[in-house]
Amino acid sequence: MRTFISTIFLLALNVCVAQDQNRIIEFPDVDGFLTLKADLHIHTVFSDGLVWPTIRVDEAVKDGLDVISMTEHIEYQPWSDDIPNPDRNRSYHIAKKAAKPYDMIVIHGTEITRDLPPGHANALFVKDVNEIMSESVLESYRKARNQGAFIFWNHPNWIAQQKSALPKITEFHKKLIKEDLLHGMEVVNDLTFSEEGVKVALENNLTIMGTSDIHGLVDYQYRLENGGHRPVSLIFAKEKTEESIKEALFAGRTVTWFENILSGREDNMKLLIEASLEFVNKRYIGYSEVLEYDIVNSSDATFYLHNTSPYDFYANTDIIEVIPHSTKRLKIITSQGDVSKDKLTFKVLNAVIGYKKNFVIKLELE
Amino acid sequence: MRTFISTIFLLALNVCVAQDQNRIIEFPDVDGFLTLKADLHIHTVFSDGLVWPTIRVDEAVKDGLDVISMTEHIEYQPWSDDIPNPDRNRSYHIAKKAAKPYDMIVIHGTEITRDLPPGHANALFVKDVNEIMSESVLESYRKARNQGAFIFWNHPNWIAQQKSALPKITEFHKKLIKEDLLHGMEVVNDLTFSEEGVKVALENNLTIMGTSDIHGLVDYQYRLENGGHRPVSLIFAKEKTEESIKEALFAGRTVTWFENILSGREDNMKLLIEASLEFVNKRYIGYSEVLEYDIVNSSDATFYLHNTSPYDFYANTDIIEVIPHSTKRLKIITSQGDVSKDKLTFKVLNAVIGYKKNFVIKLELE
Amino acid sequence: MRTFISTIFLLALNVCVAQDQNRIIEFPDVDGFLTLKADLHIHTVFSDGLVWPTIRVDEAVKDGLDVISMTEHIEYQPWSDDIPNPDRNRSYHIAKKAAKPYDMIVIHGTEITRDLPPGHANALFVKDVNEIMSESVLESYRKARNQGAFIFWNHPNWIAQQKSALPKITEFHKKLIKEDLLHGMEVVNDLTFSEEGVKVALENNLTIMGTSDIHGLVDYQYRLENGGHRPVSLIFAKEKTEESIKEALFAGRTVTWFENILSGREDNMKLLIEASLEFVNKRYIGYSEVLEYDIVNSSDATFYLHNTSPYDFYANTDIIEVIPHSTKRLKIITSQGDVSKDKLTFKVLNAVIGYKKNFVIKLELE
Amino acid sequence: MRTFISTIFLLALNVCVAQDQNRIIEFPDVDGFLTLKADLHIHTVFSDGLVWPTIRVDEAVKDGLDVISMTEHIEYQPWSDDIPNPDRNRSYHIAKKAAKPYDMIVIHGTEITRDLPPGHANALFVKDVNEIMSESVLESYRKARNQGAFIFWNHPNWIAQQKSALPKITEFHKKLIKEDLLHGMEVVNDLTFSEEGVKVALENNLTIMGTSDIHGLVDYQYRLENGGHRPVSLIFAKEKTEESIKEALFAGRTVTWFENILSGREDNMKLLIEASLEFVNKRYIGYSEVLEYDIVNSSDATFYLHNTSPYDFYANTDIIEVIPHSTKRLKIITSQGDVSKDKLTFKVLNAVIGYKKNFVIKLELE
Repeated sequence: MRTFISTIFLLALNVCVAQDQNRIIEFPDVDGFLTLKADLHIHTVFSDGLVWPTIRVDEAVKDGLDVISMTEHIEYQPWSDDIPNPDRNRSYHIAKKAAKPYDMIVIHGTEITRDLPPGHANALFVKDVNEIMSESVLESYRKARNQGAFIFWNHPNWIAQQKSALPKITEFHKKLIKEDLLHGMEVVNDLTFSEEGVKVALENNLTIMGTSDIHGLVDYQYRLENGGHRPVSLIFAKEKTEESIKEALFAGRTVTWFENILSGREDNMKLLIEASLEFVNKRYIGYSEVLEYDIVNSSDATFYLHNTSPYDFYANTDIIEVIPHSTKRLKIITSQGDVSKDKLTFKVLNAVIGYKKNFVIKLELE
Repeated sequence: MRTFISTIFLLALNVCVAQDQNRIIEFPDVDGFLTLKADLHIHTVFSDGLVWPTIRVDEAVKDGLDVISMTEHIEYQPWSDDIPNPDRNRSYHIAKKAAKPYDMIVIHGTEITRDLPPGHANALFVKDVNEIMSESVLESYRKARNQGAFIFWNHPNWIAQQKSALPKITEFHKKLIKEDLLHGMEVVNDLTFSEEGVKVALENNLTIMGTSDIHGLVDYQYRLENGGHRPVSLIFAKEKTEESIKEALFAGRTVTWFENILSGREDNMKLLIEASLEFVNKRYIGYSEVLEYDIVNSSDATFYLHNTSPYDFYANTDIIEVIPHSTKRLKIITSQGDVSKDKLTFKVLNAVIGYKKNFVIKLELE
Repeated sequence: MRTFISTIFLLALNVCVAQDQNRIIEFPDVDGFLTLKADLHIHTVFSDGLVWPTIRVDEAVKDGLDVISMTEHIEYQPWSDDIPNPDRNRSYHIAKKAAKPYDMIVIHGTEITRDLPPGHANALFVKDVNEIMSESVLESYRKARNQGAFIFWNHPNWIAQQKSALPKITEFHKKLIKEDLLHGMEVVNDLTFSEEGVKVALENNLTIMGTSDIHGLVDYQYRLENGGHRPVSLIFAKEKTEESIKEALFAGRTVTWFENILSGREDNMKLLIEASLEFVNKRYIGYSEVLEYDIVNSSDATFYLHNTSPYDFYANTDIIEVIPHSTKRLKIITSQGDVSKDKLTFKVLNAVIGYKKNFVIKLELE
Repeated sequence: MRTFISTIFLLALNVCVAQDQNRIIEFPDVDGFLTLKADLHIHTVFSDGLVWPTIRVDEAVKDGLDVISMTEHIEYQPWSDDIPNPDRNRSYHIAKKAAKPYDMIVIHGTEITRDLPPGHANALFVKDVNEIMSESVLESYRKARNQGAFIFWNHPNWIAQQKSALPKITEFHKKLIKEDLLHGMEVVNDLTFSEEGVKVALENNLTIMGTSDIHGLVDYQYRLENGGHRPVSLIFAKEKTEESIKEALFAGRTVTWFENILSGREDNMKLLIEASLEFVNKRYIGYSEVLEYDIVNSSDATFYLHNTSPYDFYANTDIIEVIPHSTKRLKIITSQGDVSKDKLTFKVLNAVIGYKKNFVIKLELE
């Protein structure tokens, strides 16, 4: 019902996209840093995506994101018959303008889209995408880096490029890393997670990234109506500024959030879990040897804690489920251990900090 | 114990959009006709909309629609710097192709976008939109009509064109009607409903239309997460074919469905309500004078029935609420009337068949 | 992202019944009075009910009630083979003790259970039920009254006693009223509502009462899992004390809440509706003649407002639905009236203040 | 609103308790047996419970149970001042009669309530509870056994009797077992689960039992409104008859269902899991080495499958969550193993078959 005649009325029915409390992604700030929710791999009609950039801003507002980036393929432009796209910065500029009414940062980015190696990569914090286009992949990376880019390898597990689905770092990738041309790597992309990817990222000191790589609608792709969410990177930044986000990415301070899985470097995971789970109200039940404890979860994750201590529980097996934004009461049968020295220890099944390696929580009981 | 998540077989990561049982718009077929759910006013990036045409197909599949039409503005092309759009049939062709895997009809249409009079109008069942473009509005209408178009007036209540919000039929409109160039009129557009519009449509024998006129995302605009739905026209067609839909539109066999309001010609409303509500299981409670009756509602509408008979109810006031896809038991105090002659009569508060006029249900009690 | 499970701190396995935010009955306090939620007709195993009195306290805590009364039948004791019940105050004493941890008032009551006339009646604020037992119904009423009782007629529409379902006040009832032995009357009992009852109560200046008369479980009888609620009386009291409640009942300051229907004396309804609905943010949309208005509903009732003014709406028919604890935006087409003198008037379809009579809201538009 | 005058009208408003699809406990029948859902430890006002026996039938109908038993304490009768209870079979007879309209079996039972050892025990399939009362605990057990009873030890982990919360089998218990006076043991009681109990039961060849031991309301105690359920024993019986249930209990064919935990003997767990989970639609994605597999869960349990094979997944970590009544797609990276010999193996984290021992699923991939 909009027209060319008057735009003044646009505001009437439809001012801003409203935040929707039910779908906002929520994780607490951590010790010393803000926890910024970021999706840094997004497509629009300006490459092979299916929406105008403003819709990407609307979706991100609904999801409560702090940071997004339109990362159009430089080399892949399937709609070019309809959208000739001479200026590759259009997508960024449209999104940037649309984000103005909101407290959201739009980062100037693009996707350098090549066969393996090196495969696809996103360059963030660039100045002019047109300048980055080049026959030579190395030149593209260097031009992006010269503009100050943080560059990360996309979906290294992608079966369209890697039949085995196992990320394989090549000599070319090592060269890129050595020349300061590759800084991060996706372990989460769209609906996929790569545990092997976590290993490769850690071995090569690459920042661990999780992104949606959305082409269609976030709501449909991640089944929001069933409680799903888009994959994101949680970035631990000193401030909510582009500069601070850049510093955090180069410093590797991220944890990815995909379905119910958190993955990241152990130090980052420690920050996040210590902020998300609080252990309180320790006391014995009556005269019994059963000790009660409350676990308060202030995050969106359902934590699965696998008891690895000598203790059993009075009202649970060894797998403790702590649902989002709730409190779980534990009842520990202390007679099975020695509370003066045996800690309560949990492997956090949904917190991956390495290949087949989970974060471990240790709690004093005395 | 069924969970809130319905069983879904996702065929692949990304292939087809799944229907979502919770949001499918459902009305029963009526006596002699199929009830087709149609949204015949839709925009994409090929005029001033915000999505690629394929997304419109995805949304419609989710909503369980039978018929859609991309109706891009001929005269309003705000994205033309990015999308030059030399062939105005592109949007139709892309949607048509995307709809192939589904049982959905895409009708070739366009929006002729002028100041009042005549205002905006959609032409459906056209052959080539490029041919319809003309400086002269009358010529545009005639060219569309020559292609066989069904033409309807859009949002005649729109405050951007009509400060009073009251549709006003002009001599120009009358001329169009007389020349067989105007066949229908929206009484529902986007988030608006015009009771005055119902009057004007009926007086001028125009087909009553309800459309979304969607530019952004259906899910956000109509708050699907809160149980909302897009406005549609229910079309009573002999078959699910383009030809049959065309016949039904020219014959005026429509009822609009907006929020919880049905509006339409009395004969069409009668068809729909008789198919939607069944009155069964009449019997007295024990030896009392209270007569029980079940009302079975097989539609998505919550019916509000206002009792206008001499009878009171044993478990209700005079306003009876019959929620969607459920059964409501009525308990009628028969001692207040004479069941041999006094019928049970209800004004259906959510079924508008004229200006300040509601459909009336009459039931024998004997 | 909030889950569907609210944060609950269970204090122990079994100690206290937790309030459940989803089912607490909520109506705002009104001008000059607290709005107390009361269920004053309840049975336990001490007459023909099916639960121990403590369960009645648990249910009432869950429902957020302020006042309850166990009103066991004096003359009907079907479980007497198992429960000889020599002291008819037992039920009160057990409930009273169980209610101690909660902010809830338990009123000492009983049900005098006779054929018509006078039928069943509850006596509240009694001292000793044993004393009230008598062969003579009149003597029972007098003894109760001598103890200070407020007495109300139960389910005068009950088809087991009144085949027509129409309450009929007899000479005997008039005599009771004259002798100050009858002060109120149920218009709502369990799953029934009597519009004729409202008329009879008003004509005879009896306090309008709504009660559950629960025998089984509140959760099952009123389908709490589907969003149902037990019928209650809203009592407008100066303080949350037994004395103040008694004063309010004798003064007739009640409104009943049954399914979605409020019924009561016009002055009481006015208090409740003015507290429940606020009309704010009046302004014109752009340069149009459409005036916007927000209706804020702070109660559990879904209000159905039937427009009876000359104005139409831009986004609604004449039936406006204002759902609980939400804001509804109205868009008034002012060109159809004269805002300097024509008020916006609504019949509140769910607010019954007499036989076929609804409360009316009048709003200035200037 | 019920009265002593006429009972014929009781049927009018309130005939039967309706089943509630959302809360019915659902597990599939297993190979060779029906899966009967049983709660065999229930209290009413005839010992220290808080409801009349009919309510227990209503609750069980709502939960979709097949078998229940009222098991009143012989030795503990706190309401005896109000309910003298001379015939200890009353509770059974009332429940039995109330269950007639439903397809539900009520088993005659009682609870022999002593200090440790032997603690509390339920005797099922008895003929006359009055006969079982005795000063001597051994005599009580023998009298029950002479009536044909199946006897099981209740809450051996209960901290009110066992401060450590660890079940300890004594010489006395061994003597009972030897004399055929003890046949089963609760590992689940109310809100508690005892992993140590599973060990003790298996070591002593006792049937593994899970019961609610409900005293208040099932809905409140197990937070049905939040998706909770009462603990039950799933009994694998040849027919739905009392005789067949008895045979199954003596044969030890049970699995307990508590929160999300299944516990039982390995052979029984195998039956249940093979009936609950189906693995279908195996095929490779395109030309990749990723093999897809669908897991169809037809039970109420959320299965947590811990991958212990050499394979990783393309869209998951090693913990696979399979929600109730849904299908989960697995994407197996086959390049990490040898599909001709390496099976896909999962430890089922929510299926306990011994102390710190979980059921294991092994799947061929070829």
